[in-house]
Amino acid sequence: MMEKLTVIKVGGKVIEDPVTLKEFTEKFKLVPGKKILVHGGGVMADKMLQRMGLEPKKLDGRRITDEETLDTVVMVYGGLVNKGIVGVLQGIGVSAVGVTGMDGGSIVSTKRPSEPFDYGFAGDVQQVNTTMMNSLMHSGYVPVIAPITGTEEGQLLNTNADTIASEVAKAFSDQYEVELIYGFEIDGVLEDINDTESLIHEIKYDEYQVLKEKQQIHSGMIPKLDNAFGAKKFVSRVIIGNYIRVNEISLNTTEKYTKLST
Amino acid sequence: MMEKLTVIKVGGKVIEDPVTLKEFTEKFKLVPGKKILVHGGGVMADKMLQRMGLEPKKLDGRRITDEETLDTVVMVYGGLVNKGIVGVLQGIGVSAVGVTGMDGGSIVSTKRPSEPFDYGFAGDVQQVNTTMMNSLMHSGYVPVIAPITGTEEGQLLNTNADTIASEVAKAFSDQYEVELIYGFEIDGVLEDINDTESLIHEIKYDEYQVLKEKQQIHSGMIPKLDNAFGAKKFVSRVIIGNYIRVNEISLNTTEKYTKLST
Repeated sequence: MMEKLTVIKVGGKVIEDPVTLKEFTEKFKLVPGKKILVHGGGVMADKMLQRMGLEPKKLDGRRITDEETLDTVVMVYGGLVNKGIVGVLQGIGVSAVGVTGMDGGSIVSTKRPSEPFDYGFAGDVQQVNTTMMNSLMHSGYVPVIAPITGTEEGQLLNTNADTIASEVAKAFSDQYEVELIYGFEIDGVLEDINDTESLIHEIKYDEYQVLKEKQQIHSGMIPKLDNAFGAKKFVSRVIIGNYIRVNEISLNTTEKYTKLST
Repeated sequence: MMEKLTVIKVGGKVIEDPVTLKEFTEKFKLVPGKKILVHGGGVMADKMLQRMGLEPKKLDGRRITDEETLDTVVMVYGGLVNKGIVGVLQGIGVSAVGVTGMDGGSIVSTKRPSEPFDYGFAGDVQQVNTTMMNSLMHSGYVPVIAPITGTEEGQLLNTNADTIASEVAKAFSDQYEVELIYGFEIDGVLEDINDTESLIHEIKYDEYQVLKEKQQIHSGMIPKLDNAFGAKKFVSRVIIGNYIRVNEISLNTTEKYTKLST
């Protein structure tokens, strides 16, 4: 049997609110075995762009990354957010090392084609090199990954954190029994977005397609679920759950989550 | 005989000018064996503070780091500058991993006492833990260190890059034959600041004190030389030199540098 590796992705309130970050990290600490944390930071980037007098540009919720925006997301994701999380983890005794996908050439991407639409310095992941993250984990460190990747030529690129989590989970699946957890403020995928009691405990890809057609799944959840299902056939378990229960999910002591199945 | 480790510190134009950074990294690549790069970034931080409508505050050239300034230096040093350097290194085939002293608890500091003067979130280095950097180097990566450290409680602190270079060099001195190189735009310590031909090839601590008294040494050079001399008794060689000759200095194929001696 292969050793277990848990890849956890968080965004939203965990990034923006120090109290929530603290709560999450206390639960994250309790997740047993090797683990990797992937974080977003979009709202923080928007705030910084505005502070610098720049307008956050988006198309269908996806950021258009011009040169100044790239500098800003590199600073905010790779610096402010990443080191903020690492600091909180270190403070509670979790020895964490914060990196981007550029570090050690660990997540190689290419610049997204400018047709049909130019997203600027946006990266599409091509390859995950597990060597550096493995080296850190074998020495007892928890890699904390900011959503920045890079080309082989050294160009930094802004990259979707959900995709990074999915690609990292897939890349480790031949070495570990990988569990991929997408952490949210809600318990999982809801049948009715307005009813927190309508949690779907297990969702098949076909069922997801039906819910999508019926527009029962929230728009922001769609790219996340697409990424999550993309990883499903490679990893042992993909969970959409509440980040505050990340330890219980990992330890199987709760049923409050959505498990993806094929 | 112990394996050689070269610790190189750069700041100034290397950080601010992409062409100079490219030139430096090409030379850095040629430095043989294990190596660690420590960088500054003060001018970039000043620019970002101004961009954000904040006034860089300093006392005797040392930054006063209030809370907003701390966020800014974490972003600029740990994100923008650090990942910029890592990107350029990766692009020329040097596999680099950018970290701060907070990552892996590798450089533990305490907040500088607020008396006689309150420098805010400024860190005084207490301990360097070499485990994480060693783990990266043993896997073939070059650690690139941003001048941010942290307390054991997880508080990020702004820390002088010259001090970090000196403390890192000292910490590795029982495992490696360490060479510490402070890289500048000039060839080394000059007898006459206005005469680039007046390079001092070797300087003893006593001689340094005399030059300091005579005010022949430039004010900005004093804390650097204090740090450099502080490391001298622990490491095999401390050099003040031109960053563009860093490979020649390391390979002993130039005599254009200042060597510190006791």
